[in-house]
Order: sequence, then structure tokens, then C-alpha cells
Amino acid sequence: MVVKVYGPVYASPKRVIACLIEKQVEFETVEVDIIKGEHKHPEFLKLQPFGELPVIQDGDYTLYESRAIIRYYAEKYKSQGTELLGSTMEEKGLVEQWLEVEAHNFHPPLYELVIQIVFSSKLGFPLDPKVVQASEEKLGKVLDIYEERLSRSKYLAGDFFSLADLSHLPFAQYLVEGYPLGKLGKEYMIRDRKHVSAWWDNISSRPSWKKVLQL
Amino acid sequence: MVVKVYGPVYASPKRVIACLIEKQVEFETVEVDIIKGEHKHPEFLKLQPFGELPVIQDGDYTLYESRAIIRYYAEKYKSQGTELLGSTMEEKGLVEQWLEVEAHNFHPPLYELVIQIVFSSKLGFPLDPKVVQASEEKLGKVLDIYEERLSRSKYLAGDFFSLADLSHLPFAQYLVEGYPLGKLGKEYMIRDRKHVSAWWDNISSRPSWKKVLQL
Repeated sequence: MVVKVYGPVYASPKRVIACLIEKQVEFETVEVDIIKGEHKHPEFLKLQPFGELPVIQDGDYTLYESRAIIRYYAEKYKSQGTELLGSTMEEKGLVEQWLEVEAHNFHPPLYELVIQIVFSSKLGFPLDPKVVQASEEKLGKVLDIYEERLSRSKYLAGDFFSLADLSHLPFAQYLVEGYPLGKLGKEYMIRDRKHVSAWWDNISSRPSWKKVLQL
Repeated sequence: MVVKVYGPVYASPKRVIACLIEKQVEFETVEVDIIKGEHKHPEFLKLQPFGELPVIQDGDYTLYESRAIIRYYAEKYKSQGTELLGSTMEEKGLVEQWLEVEAHNFHPPLYELVIQIVFSSKLGFPLDPKVVQASEEKLGKVLDIYEERLSRSKYLAGDFFSLADLSHLPFAQYLVEGYPLGKLGKEYMIRDRKHVSAWWDNISSRPSWKKVLQL
């Protein structure tokens, strides 16, 4: 059964696609145009009532929320492709911890920067320099803690690549190289931190992520 | 080994405590006073570098982020106490989905209401009626989707109680009965929705949650 992934152009669905490639799971993509409001169409709301991306369909099983979907596939195909959950219960706990840190500490200020810098003109509202500055400061403090953590282990949850690292790829990409849609021009936030910089080079050079960017 | 839970007075640590009671895991609590700034003390930052609650210590294993901790214990003690992850991979996927919905759709507007209505005077800033109104509207729309979902299944992830339901308890409590620290006075948001109301009565009358409130 080929997994259908909705909304491949956007960042959060790329989290799912990177995971499916790591797990060697076949997939196809279904375009959803947010600018045209397709994520609020009744047909789409039947799949995802909150009108958000991504959603997957796997036979008659439908699942949404990118970080739920990657957990599902990492566990369903545990012994296939890259092991993404650690090898002990305690390692898995740390993977969960850093997945939550990504969602609650790393993502919100970075998402705000993306909305302000990349999407404000496209969405028709003025960029707010105060919000940009506050978000940049907040993200900087988070990355200082990452720097300390990554001085002690190669990856966030330990010395193994996991969902916790993978989950950072789509939005961190905006900081560094960006996408055709735009980039933040804040590469210094990664580059000024030696261990964060090495970690980013390491995880973003994985074949799975390169393939995501080529799609 | 008795699990140490930091910060039992606050809402997020109650998510962990409810889970430990459901899983019949022994624990003790360690007070952390946020008003006194104890969550930013160097000793605490060694356990939780972001200065947030809760943290647990289980022997020499330290873990933070409440939703990571509850996943860890639900899996570690899978065959002990209440099964909180569903019984198939697909059920577990839906538990993960609704855990993420709780974190990303339900929690942010409700947290904003709690900060504004319960904590603004304690923290020394004025309540902003515009923020209250916007958050209430946002939460209302989320609860409309819950109402539809709960008209089709007894619990969020299906016909079984899970981490997804449990995770809602600490902040939903503010809507209805509140805590000694204060309540929102927005019980109508639950009571005006028949299925949400029945769901709340069901999950909040579990012995585990009653015990949490007595602590």
C-alpha cells in the first residue's frame, strides 16, 4: 500500500516525507494549495477537521499531525530502514523529550520568524520588526541550550540519529538555505554555534533530506 | 525506585502525576516555587535547562517535558495499571494524533486564558480583554471539533481511555472547577457541548484525577 502524503510543498509535511524515506516506505504526494485556501475546503476538512497540513492516508487509515505520523511509522516499521527511536526505553524517553523541545521551544519562535519574514508579504500583512526581534532573541536562547547539549552528544537524544533530530530539519532549513518560497537570512544563528553548526551539517546532509529537497 | 516529580502544585506536572497513578507507579513530589523564581535557579537548570516544569528523576534517569514523561511511563509499564496507549499500532497512532492536537490546538488558547485571567494579577501585568476574547473564540472552535469527534467515539482516540484524554485534565480543570489558585469561570465552554460535557464528566471522575486534586 502506497502512503499518500498531503501538502508536500510545505514544511511540516516534509517532516513526514523525510521519515518515510528513512524508513524505506513508499509514498505519493497530493498537492494542497494553502494560498488558494484548499486546506479549508469541505473535502479536506473531512480528512483534517482543523484544516492543517499534513495528513496521510494509508489504505483506509487516516492520520494527521506530523509528529504523530512520524512516531507511527518509526514504530510500525521498527526493523526496516533507519532505527529512529533509540534502542532502549530510556533512549526512547530522551527522543520523546527532544521531540517535545522541538515542538514547544524551538518551533514557535522559528515559525514566527518564517511567518514574518517569508510569508507576511505573500499573506498581505506588514512585517513587525518587534516580533522579529523578540522571536530571534527567544530562538537564540534556545539554541544556546542546544549548543551545550550538542557539546556532550552527537545528536540531541544521544549518540544516535533519531526522530528528535529529523523533526528539526524542515524549519531549520529556513534559517540556512531556505526553499524556493524564501529563506530567513539568519544562517548566523546556526553558524555562530560550533556544535549546532556541526550537527546541522551532519543531519542536513543525510540522503533522505537531500531527496526531500529535490522533490 | 520511587519517582521524584518536581513542581506538583502546577498544572503540567499534574499530567505526569495522573499518569503515574494510572500506571500504579510510586512517586514523591519536590516543591518548586515559580513565584519565587526557583525554576530559574542554577540547581534546577541543571535538571531542566529551559527552566520549565515538570522534571522527573527516576534513579539516575532524568526526563522533562510532561508529554514525553507520560509516554515513557505508559510504555515502560505497559502491562501494569491502565493501558494508556491503545492495543494496536493504529490505535496508538490515533493516541499520538490527539496528544498532538491537545498540545497544538487545545492547549495554547486555554493556556493564554489561564495566564490572563488567573495569573495576570499575580504576575503583575494587566489583563488584556482582546487577548481573552480571541483565545476564547479560538478555543471554542477547537471544542466544536471535539464535540463532533466525541459524538462518534467515547474518548478522543476511540472507545478507550488513553494518554490523549489524560493529557487534557490539568488545563481543562481550570475551565470547570479550577484550583485553589483560581479558575477561569468558563464552564459553559464544556457544558454547552453535550458530548464534550459527558466526556469531561467521565474522565475527570476517574479515581486517579480525584487523587491528583486531593494532593
